[in-house]
Amino acid sequence: MNPVDLFEQVVHLPDPKAQTDYDRLVGLDDYKERLVKETLLLVDPGLLTEWSRKHYRNLLPALDYFAARPPLFVLAGDVGTGKTALARSFGNEVARRAKVQVHLYTMSLNARGSGAVGEMTRLISGAFRQVRDAVAKSRDGHGRAGRGIILLIDEADALAQSREAAQMHHEDRAGVNSLIRGVDEIAAERLPIAIIMCTNRLDAMDPAVRRRAAAVFEFHRPNRQQRIAVLRAGLHGTNITDREIEALADTSGESAERSHSFTYSDLTQRLIPTLILDAFPEGPVTGARAIEVAKSIKPTPPFRGQREASAHGGSHG
Amino acid sequence: MNPVDLFEQVVHLPDPKAQTDYDRLVGLDDYKERLVKETLLLVDPGLLTEWSRKHYRNLLPALDYFAARPPLFVLAGDVGTGKTALARSFGNEVARRAKVQVHLYTMSLNARGSGAVGEMTRLISGAFRQVRDAVAKSRDGHGRAGRGIILLIDEADALAQSREAAQMHHEDRAGVNSLIRGVDEIAAERLPIAIIMCTNRLDAMDPAVRRRAAAVFEFHRPNRQQRIAVLRAGLHGTNITDREIEALADTSGESAERSHSFTYSDLTQRLIPTLILDAFPEGPVTGARAIEVAKSIKPTPPFRGQREASAHGGSHG
Amino acid sequence: MNPVDLFEQVVHLPDPKAQTDYDRLVGLDDYKERLVKETLLLVDPGLLTEWSRKHYRNLLPALDYFAARPPLFVLAGDVGTGKTALARSFGNEVARRAKVQVHLYTMSLNARGSGAVGEMTRLISGAFRQVRDAVAKSRDGHGRAGRGIILLIDEADALAQSREAAQMHHEDRAGVNSLIRGVDEIAAERLPIAIIMCTNRLDAMDPAVRRRAAAVFEFHRPNRQQRIAVLRAGLHGTNITDREIEALADTSGESAERSHSFTYSDLTQRLIPTLILDAFPEGPVTGARAIEVAKSIKPTPPFRGQREASAHGGSHG
Amino acid sequence: MNPVDLFEQVVHLPDPKAQTDYDRLVGLDDYKERLVKETLLLVDPGLLTEWSRKHYRNLLPALDYFAARPPLFVLAGDVGTGKTALARSFGNEVARRAKVQVHLYTMSLNARGSGAVGEMTRLISGAFRQVRDAVAKSRDGHGRAGRGIILLIDEADALAQSREAAQMHHEDRAGVNSLIRGVDEIAAERLPIAIIMCTNRLDAMDPAVRRRAAAVFEFHRPNRQQRIAVLRAGLHGTNITDREIEALADTSGESAERSHSFTYSDLTQRLIPTLILDAFPEGPVTGARAIEVAKSIKPTPPFRGQREASAHGGSHG
Amino acid sequence: MNPVDLFEQVVHLPDPKAQTDYDRLVGLDDYKERLVKETLLLVDPGLLTEWSRKHYRNLLPALDYFAARPPLFVLAGDVGTGKTALARSFGNEVARRAKVQVHLYTMSLNARGSGAVGEMTRLISGAFRQVRDAVAKSRDGHGRAGRGIILLIDEADALAQSREAAQMHHEDRAGVNSLIRGVDEIAAERLPIAIIMCTNRLDAMDPAVRRRAAAVFEFHRPNRQQRIAVLRAGLHGTNITDREIEALADTSGESAERSHSFTYSDLTQRLIPTLILDAFPEGPVTGARAIEVAKSIKPTPPFRGQREASAHGGSHG
Amino acid sequence: MNPVDLFEQVVHLPDPKAQTDYDRLVGLDDYKERLVKETLLLVDPGLLTEWSRKHYRNLLPALDYFAARPPLFVLAGDVGTGKTALARSFGNEVARRAKVQVHLYTMSLNARGSGAVGEMTRLISGAFRQVRDAVAKSRDGHGRAGRGIILLIDEADALAQSREAAQMHHEDRAGVNSLIRGVDEIAAERLPIAIIMCTNRLDAMDPAVRRRAAAVFEFHRPNRQQRIAVLRAGLHGTNITDREIEALADTSGESAERSHSFTYSDLTQRLIPTLILDAFPEGPVTGARAIEVAKSIKPTPPFRGQREASAHGGSHG
Repeated sequence: MNPVDLFEQVVHLPDPKAQTDYDRLVGLDDYKERLVKETLLLVDPGLLTEWSRKHYRNLLPALDYFAARPPLFVLAGDVGTGKTALARSFGNEVARRAKVQVHLYTMSLNARGSGAVGEMTRLISGAFRQVRDAVAKSRDGHGRAGRGIILLIDEADALAQSREAAQMHHEDRAGVNSLIRGVDEIAAERLPIAIIMCTNRLDAMDPAVRRRAAAVFEFHRPNRQQRIAVLRAGLHGTNITDREIEALADTSGESAERSHSFTYSDLTQRLIPTLILDAFPEGPVTGARAIEVAKSIKPTPPFRGQREASAHGGSHG
Repeated sequence: MNPVDLFEQVVHLPDPKAQTDYDRLVGLDDYKERLVKETLLLVDPGLLTEWSRKHYRNLLPALDYFAARPPLFVLAGDVGTGKTALARSFGNEVARRAKVQVHLYTMSLNARGSGAVGEMTRLISGAFRQVRDAVAKSRDGHGRAGRGIILLIDEADALAQSREAAQMHHEDRAGVNSLIRGVDEIAAERLPIAIIMCTNRLDAMDPAVRRRAAAVFEFHRPNRQQRIAVLRAGLHGTNITDREIEALADTSGESAERSHSFTYSDLTQRLIPTLILDAFPEGPVTGARAIEVAKSIKPTPPFRGQREASAHGGSHG
Repeated sequence: MNPVDLFEQVVHLPDPKAQTDYDRLVGLDDYKERLVKETLLLVDPGLLTEWSRKHYRNLLPALDYFAARPPLFVLAGDVGTGKTALARSFGNEVARRAKVQVHLYTMSLNARGSGAVGEMTRLISGAFRQVRDAVAKSRDGHGRAGRGIILLIDEADALAQSREAAQMHHEDRAGVNSLIRGVDEIAAERLPIAIIMCTNRLDAMDPAVRRRAAAVFEFHRPNRQQRIAVLRAGLHGTNITDREIEALADTSGESAERSHSFTYSDLTQRLIPTLILDAFPEGPVTGARAIEVAKSIKPTPPFRGQREASAHGGSHG
Repeated sequence: MNPVDLFEQVVHLPDPKAQTDYDRLVGLDDYKERLVKETLLLVDPGLLTEWSRKHYRNLLPALDYFAARPPLFVLAGDVGTGKTALARSFGNEVARRAKVQVHLYTMSLNARGSGAVGEMTRLISGAFRQVRDAVAKSRDGHGRAGRGIILLIDEADALAQSREAAQMHHEDRAGVNSLIRGVDEIAAERLPIAIIMCTNRLDAMDPAVRRRAAAVFEFHRPNRQQRIAVLRAGLHGTNITDREIEALADTSGESAERSHSFTYSDLTQRLIPTLILDAFPEGPVTGARAIEVAKSIKPTPPFRGQREASAHGGSHG
Repeated sequence: MNPVDLFEQVVHLPDPKAQTDYDRLVGLDDYKERLVKETLLLVDPGLLTEWSRKHYRNLLPALDYFAARPPLFVLAGDVGTGKTALARSFGNEVARRAKVQVHLYTMSLNARGSGAVGEMTRLISGAFRQVRDAVAKSRDGHGRAGRGIILLIDEADALAQSREAAQMHHEDRAGVNSLIRGVDEIAAERLPIAIIMCTNRLDAMDPAVRRRAAAVFEFHRPNRQQRIAVLRAGLHGTNITDREIEALADTSGESAERSHSFTYSDLTQRLIPTLILDAFPEGPVTGARAIEVAKSIKPTPPFRGQREASAHGGSHG
Repeated sequence: MNPVDLFEQVVHLPDPKAQTDYDRLVGLDDYKERLVKETLLLVDPGLLTEWSRKHYRNLLPALDYFAARPPLFVLAGDVGTGKTALARSFGNEVARRAKVQVHLYTMSLNARGSGAVGEMTRLISGAFRQVRDAVAKSRDGHGRAGRGIILLIDEADALAQSREAAQMHHEDRAGVNSLIRGVDEIAAERLPIAIIMCTNRLDAMDPAVRRRAAAVFEFHRPNRQQRIAVLRAGLHGTNITDREIEALADTSGESAERSHSFTYSDLTQRLIPTLILDAFPEGPVTGARAIEVAKSIKPTPPFRGQREASAHGGSHG
């Protein structure tokens, strides 16, 4: 079982593309800062003891509370709201600030296996073992890890599906168990591995997984301000004016006919490319035509069960 | 596993029959143009950079948004509304304009396998590998592919069934995963392969598949104008008058008793052949009798769950 | 796998018993004529080109529409309404008119297999291969087949069960796929094989199967006129008078207590034999007693889900 | 696979115990006579032709209707209403009248197998083969069978479960198919085997099985008259007076608190034994005490789904 | 397969502990007497013929009704109402009165097997064979068995689960079948084996099992009188006064907040031990404190579906 | 199968960390005392007889009631309410008071196996055998065990899932059976092993497991008093004032917008660490900012089905 099977290609940060993606994420500053700080402290835990000594002259008991939590963060919210984009890019900022490499491991869909008995357990255990091995090699003698690791599990609900469901398949349940074990072992050994789970079905995740999360971040569709920022970046270089950008932001917002606005990816993967295609090959993109095209596109419908999640599922803490 | 197993016979375009079929599709000009342009740009990506240079003097950042999307297009709508006919024929127009061959690969129902563990994954991976191999052989030294490929997945909902369904079979879920992987790899390598998925159950498709779509096109039953065009073509050579054709179009439309009109295939596969059979062997087809026969035929009932799809599922973008 | 396994005994038509059965079917003249004509044209496609040449001087494009359809006919309706009786006997009329042999292949329940992985697919594919082989041997040099083949699939819903059902067994789904493939191949090669599917659960049939049907015929319980004809034939030779026959027809119709009348088989397999048994051994069947016995028999309840089918399922075309 | 496995011990009739049981069944004269006559005519089909010749001078076409039906009879109704008792005993009367042996084969629960793939099919096929072999050996040269066979399938719904149920196990469906095949082969070869299926879930039986039935008999709980007859027979020899018997019949009938009366077996297996036990060892059974005991016993609740069956399921024909 | 696997340790009665348990059961005198008498007559069937001869001068036909029933008794009711306690102890009284040994076989949960195909059937058949062998060895020459056997199946619903449930596992169904066979064979051979099934889900038991029961006894939670008796026995030797015992009985009864009182085992396994523990080690149990403790304990909630059972399920007969 | 597989690392008590955890649990004094006493009496059963002799001069019959119960305790309640923390730490107090070692065995998620037939049964049986072996080695000659054992089964509902659920997997059911057997054997041999099951789905636990519990303890979210105590301990050493702590306790309580307060772990694993992180690296934690942060955190939503549990599930006894 080689890395290709369990992970998508491992990304080494810093990396210019990740920097661009990170910068492009608008309105998520709190989440950005939190994830970066958490991961910095995983890479160099000495920073927190220094802080405690500096401000309190000794080590606060709260530091132990801090260190004992599993370094698990859940990014929850509708499709296309930037969860995965943030998860894939914040490590760049960590690398930049800590001046170490950060390796991003994205668990492959392959790790779900094909249903053979015991396979899912073996694959997930194997994936955790692999990231732990990667960390082990990098530690120097002073407790400071030579690099940080981010373990990204996208569409985590599929893997960490709630065992509450009566009809759950035995094999899946075993997979959840091995996932919990993997998280617990990283916590117990205090490894510099930030585990990020993205989901648009927070409620479908196993309670035992969720309660291990140090924080659950809620993601929403971009508001007007954020849509303007995204469109401005995406249409940079065209002759679209600021006023036209604003009109596009309005067109892609909520309206009388629908209660949901465009998602981030509706803007970047559907609207902007369609504008290009529409103009091609006759002439440049024009504001008037752009708004017309935007009107013809329907935003992605909200994920079923999303309402419930936003009602009580998330937590900023 | 030879090609016969995973694909129906590969069609080489241009081809006169496809031309006829393409021309016969009435009222779908927007979709036609969009698919043709998208595929042209896949075959020759240089056209877009030329356009950008010409109109903006340099490369717009939006071009990168454009190129980074998976070249996946979903054709959604009721049975018999022309989805498959368009998917099978628009490549002809691409071939004609780009002056290259376009090969149409239609994934066989066989690719769904027979339920053996791991089989569906293996078959789907194999199918994707095959189309990628086909492209690899055709590239010339200047980034321009020697031919275009269209990968058509009909009744895609069966293959890309939503993994949300709690009772979903493990094997099927693995199949969806390998489908997503196949799409992502084509996007990552920017291969000139337009992936077309037809479905009459858009809502049943996995959200992770749908959100990868560059566009979702909605198909509807033909309106009066379109029915007239279809009937005129199909009854060409008989003595049916224009007025009679119009009467037939009315008879095959919505009525007091039913809220749905004839589908394209109700016209071409049921009404027209029945007129022939009815006249045979005694004499020619007459308008009066044709209308009588049309009245005796009930249109195909709308697909269950179609309403939901038309309410929020489609997007023109 | 010998023929006995996949088909019930193959019937060679014409055959006096089939003639009797065919003649006994009352009030189904439209369906009879349509099926006979369709099959005649499959056996001898040249007749249609002759007709076109005669009446139009050349070949109508509509002829191609006609020939391209799958030669699939669905007979849908309540149990005991004559579907199977017609399917089993109309080939006799074809044989008589075309002066060729017609072989009736009735797919055995065995073809559904016992649930082993891949078995259903293998059995159905095998069954289709067998009828195609039978045709291949009979063609003469002028495109006229030496014999016609009718492939009858009774209780087709069980085999062509809709793949829409979420909980459908993988194995069954593979079976539907191979069934569709079988139909498509017969259409593609334009073989003189009329495929007849009988079902009392039209709605349970897979949409991909149904939309391939050249026509769907709806069957209903016999009306008063038809009941009289059936009873007259069945009680021929007894002393029951015409007036008594009419009274029996009334007794076996709808009534205040029930909204459904006797089916064809309620008349032939239950009422008539019970009259005989009731009279035996004491004396002959009498009208007064016959009506009394008829009153004591309840008609077969309509099949569940039948209502839905009659509301929108059928099509005469 | 020896007989012990597929059948309970084969009973050879006539037999005094069966005679007693048959005589003890009160109020079922119509069903008794019908079953006896039907089986007599299976054993000696010549009787019917003699009858036709005698009363009509020639063979009525209706005779063929009669002989072509599968000799299948369904006994449907609530638990404890005498279905099985009649099925097990009427053969005695046949034997007595036809002066031949009648062998009663009761299919064992074993024939349902243990769920191994293909097992149920093999077991049921084997059971049918066994009864057919038994008949084959007994025929004399004049078409008159040397003995009659009754094949009793108790709790037939479990075996002939409706294949309509979406979630039905493939293995069970195969079992139903082999059951249908068994019935059809007996009909086709016109073997002197009366097939009796008992069920308290008529609606759960497969439509294809039910429509093959020559008749469906409905069984009900005993009415007052019948309860008196049963109690009189069962308490014969005690000093219970007729008036007390009537009071017991009233006590065991419907009442203000409940809408259902005692079943036959509530009377014979619960009430009467309890009266004995209650009296033992102190003294004889007394009427006053008997009524008190009867009041303390609750009748068996009606089988779930029974209502539906009595509303439209049964047919006397 | 040794006895340890299929049965919990076999108990040989009489035994002082069983005597204590039997005596402690308050308010169940009818059930006690019935079970003891039934089992006495199984051990020595001659007693009943003696009785008949004595009181009627000859053998009543009702005796045959009595002897032909399966010796199966169902004890049904809520958890903790004394079903199992009675089932385990009444054999002591039988032993005492009949002056023979009575062996109590309690079927182990192991007999349910682990789900392997055919295992449950084999285990249950094996268990029945074992008790029958045990009886066979003990008979003397005069038809009087050397010992009685009680076969106790606790939580019988799990084993005798209704086969009505559509989704029932094939393996379980086979298990029910072998259970029915075991019961029928004991009845047919009239073995001195009383079969006792305890259940708190009478409705979940297979109808074919239930209708074989000679009697169904309903168990309820103890009323005030019974609670006093239980508490008096359990607190014997402490200084708790009769008035305090009565107060405890009130506290453990129904109340404004809840509609259900303490069960027998709430009293003996929760309340009384908790009183001891609460007093330990400081001093003796006091009435005031005992009532306080009792108030802090919630009775076991009624078993789901129990309501239904008490509405129509039970029968005293 | 070595201990690592079936148990998480065995903890030997007393141990300073457990002492800290035990002391930190606020407001659970009744449960603490009860568990400690129960386990003390398991380790040294002679204490209870001494007590009885001292206060009553002889052995109360109630002592036998006490000793006969399975030493099983169920800790039920919402996530994060301290169940597991108490289960893991109370043994320390037992060790301290009894001056013996107490070994804490926590059953691993591994014991649930991977779904192979028979595996779960084997694993659970193995786990029970292991703790029993551990006890056997430690007994001295006077009935006093050399050490106590606590067997902790966390998320017990997953293992002791109610077999009532119709669709339960056979394998799971077998696992429940072996769990019950394990509990019963410990009770029968009166081993000094306290079995603790934690669950947040009391209703999902098998009734046969629940009714064996000597006590069920209900856990709730901390009230204001308890929140203050937790926060005071966790923020010890910072400059947060008592008044600020109280304000934090208010902020983390119920509010107009939500009906549930913070759980214990919301306070210790989310709130306190987030305060640290928020302050880091700029300066110390301040009260004003702490309250702001607390407001941004949402408490864990109550577990589904919890309402039902608190309505009737728990019992203090």
